[in-house]
Amino acid sequence: MKTINRLPITDGYKMPAEYEEHSCSLFLWPERRDIWRNGARPVQSAITKLITTVSKYEKVIVGVTSSQFMNAKKSLPENVQLFEVSYDDIWIRDTGPTFIKNGNNICGVDWTFNAWGGIAEGSYFPWNLDELLPQKVLEWFSADRYKSSLVVEGGAFHVDGEGTFIAIKECILNANRNPNLTLAKAEKVFSDYLGITKFIWLNKGLHLEENNGHIDNMCSFLKPGEVVMAWTNNKNDPQYEISKDAYEILSNATDSKGRKLVVHKLILPQALYITEDESSGIEYSQFAIPRLKGDRLPASYINFYFVNGGVIIPKFGCEEDKIAYQQFIKFFPSREIVQIDSREFLIGGGGIHCLVQQVPK
Amino acid sequence: MKTINRLPITDGYKMPAEYEEHSCSLFLWPERRDIWRNGARPVQSAITKLITTVSKYEKVIVGVTSSQFMNAKKSLPENVQLFEVSYDDIWIRDTGPTFIKNGNNICGVDWTFNAWGGIAEGSYFPWNLDELLPQKVLEWFSADRYKSSLVVEGGAFHVDGEGTFIAIKECILNANRNPNLTLAKAEKVFSDYLGITKFIWLNKGLHLEENNGHIDNMCSFLKPGEVVMAWTNNKNDPQYEISKDAYEILSNATDSKGRKLVVHKLILPQALYITEDESSGIEYSQFAIPRLKGDRLPASYINFYFVNGGVIIPKFGCEEDKIAYQQFIKFFPSREIVQIDSREFLIGGGGIHCLVQQVPK
Repeated sequence: MKTINRLPITDGYKMPAEYEEHSCSLFLWPERRDIWRNGARPVQSAITKLITTVSKYEKVIVGVTSSQFMNAKKSLPENVQLFEVSYDDIWIRDTGPTFIKNGNNICGVDWTFNAWGGIAEGSYFPWNLDELLPQKVLEWFSADRYKSSLVVEGGAFHVDGEGTFIAIKECILNANRNPNLTLAKAEKVFSDYLGITKFIWLNKGLHLEENNGHIDNMCSFLKPGEVVMAWTNNKNDPQYEISKDAYEILSNATDSKGRKLVVHKLILPQALYITEDESSGIEYSQFAIPRLKGDRLPASYINFYFVNGGVIIPKFGCEEDKIAYQQFIKFFPSREIVQIDSREFLIGGGGIHCLVQQVPK
Repeated sequence: MKTINRLPITDGYKMPAEYEEHSCSLFLWPERRDIWRNGARPVQSAITKLITTVSKYEKVIVGVTSSQFMNAKKSLPENVQLFEVSYDDIWIRDTGPTFIKNGNNICGVDWTFNAWGGIAEGSYFPWNLDELLPQKVLEWFSADRYKSSLVVEGGAFHVDGEGTFIAIKECILNANRNPNLTLAKAEKVFSDYLGITKFIWLNKGLHLEENNGHIDNMCSFLKPGEVVMAWTNNKNDPQYEISKDAYEILSNATDSKGRKLVVHKLILPQALYITEDESSGIEYSQFAIPRLKGDRLPASYINFYFVNGGVIIPKFGCEEDKIAYQQFIKFFPSREIVQIDSREFLIGGGGIHCLVQQVPK
């Protein structure tokens, strides 16, 4: 791995869409007791199911700390490859590199990470191990690195692989990330690093989501020219106005090829909250924000993940699960749809899509 | 990586000789302050020179802990690949897997390690991280693993790649490693795990060497049918009787092909001792044996390393360095000979060969 002091665009690199073929998927193994309940055993069990499922579709590589190596090895299926690495928590979507591609060459963008908002507004402190994660992952792949000083997480943007980008202003332009950033400057960075030619900006993210608006809870591409977004018909839910505004923007948007977007509405689960039992299983520490009884969980079926030949979607244990499943069956007639219990992930602040980083073929 | 519950020999695996082609060389990055003087900075500088040299001949992969990642990345050349890993110290020859081969398939033998003699007689405690190193390395290579319960280190044996094995009884049969082992049982293990058909046993190792007799300080194959051994003409040196005994055994030995061995004598450096300045740079701790002023250093030119197209040999800063270099030039007319300062390594208890593990092509 070497750090290249040019812009990826000058070297012909672009970010492929998640629905393009992967060479593998990357995860990290959970262990923090001040974020994950009951010594992280329930979330270890949940992520084992998720990883096992993904490993049926493509190669999976899982980073694990030294102290958890044997536990992860025993828990995970034999075809999953482990590597030792240190990290502050497991959200490799946000803390890992973003892989970009030029022909058969793969490189990585190493964004700047501040734990979703820095010391004052972020989710944990410190994040020094997360900061090194992209370099370590790129070393593992012998892939070169482009460094960006933009504070942004991988879950904050989606691309269609043809030059179109969707993100949420509330997150990218937040003063807790990039205090003096303008929209024009942000667009210049994403053009230079991801090969973007057309930007679509939503205003606000999922209601009460702690990341200040990650697109991967609000809207995703199904394929070029077609998006799906989180929707509620409940006008009393604060989410209603947010979704309505997003729908209007998306319905009037065109993509990099000049296509008017087809916009699908995906059901949101009913409001879900952390229980007393769940909250009491989490150790108190000064290093992570508390996760309290009654906190709303950031549940969204938009937080799904493409694998080669399939789509992995969340299940939250509520009645909307079945409706969402049926919607996905219609969205993707040629992909297998697998629904995975995701409540444990929500307690730690994210979902399936936040837990994984794809490496393009 | 999966653990295979058969014997390597039944699957057709054998250990290639070190002089056969490598796909890469593995090192670990030093940092312990209770083994390496002056916060490990001098040995980091020394190993950087060694690694840089090896990397001119073949790919080099270096394991480094999380806290030293940036320091190693800055110190080492760009073509060296890093991976994060935890370990108790850097002797990957002894703590890493032994790679075995069947056609194009590579697997690893994971021996049992007890820090060269266990709690009472070993060099440091604990060694729990070293114990996991073979598994982690084999995960990195996606190579399968054969586990052996024999307590032995990679530096304790040499093979000629054609079925012949040389080791020292004092080490392999030591009660601090394998209390109830017989020679016959030991030979069965090495036959089963390395594909050995002929054993040559020396009695004792280098004088005062803390490993109880590692062959890689006493004797090495130059090629099939030809060995080189550490020799002194000084009859007052306790090493004299040890070398004389070894020479007699080797001169009367035949190898797996029935060849009588050609035995070369390689000069030993004069007796070298830890200085007060060196010893005082090492932090005191209860976890590692002390390295005191006046302790004899385990210096031997036998502790060289084959790379693709070259041989890396030690330099100790004494007058024998030049003589040894000239001897190697004659041993290997078709390989480049590079001499590397090795005194810093000796202070920590080993040499070039102890610091590296080859992965066969």
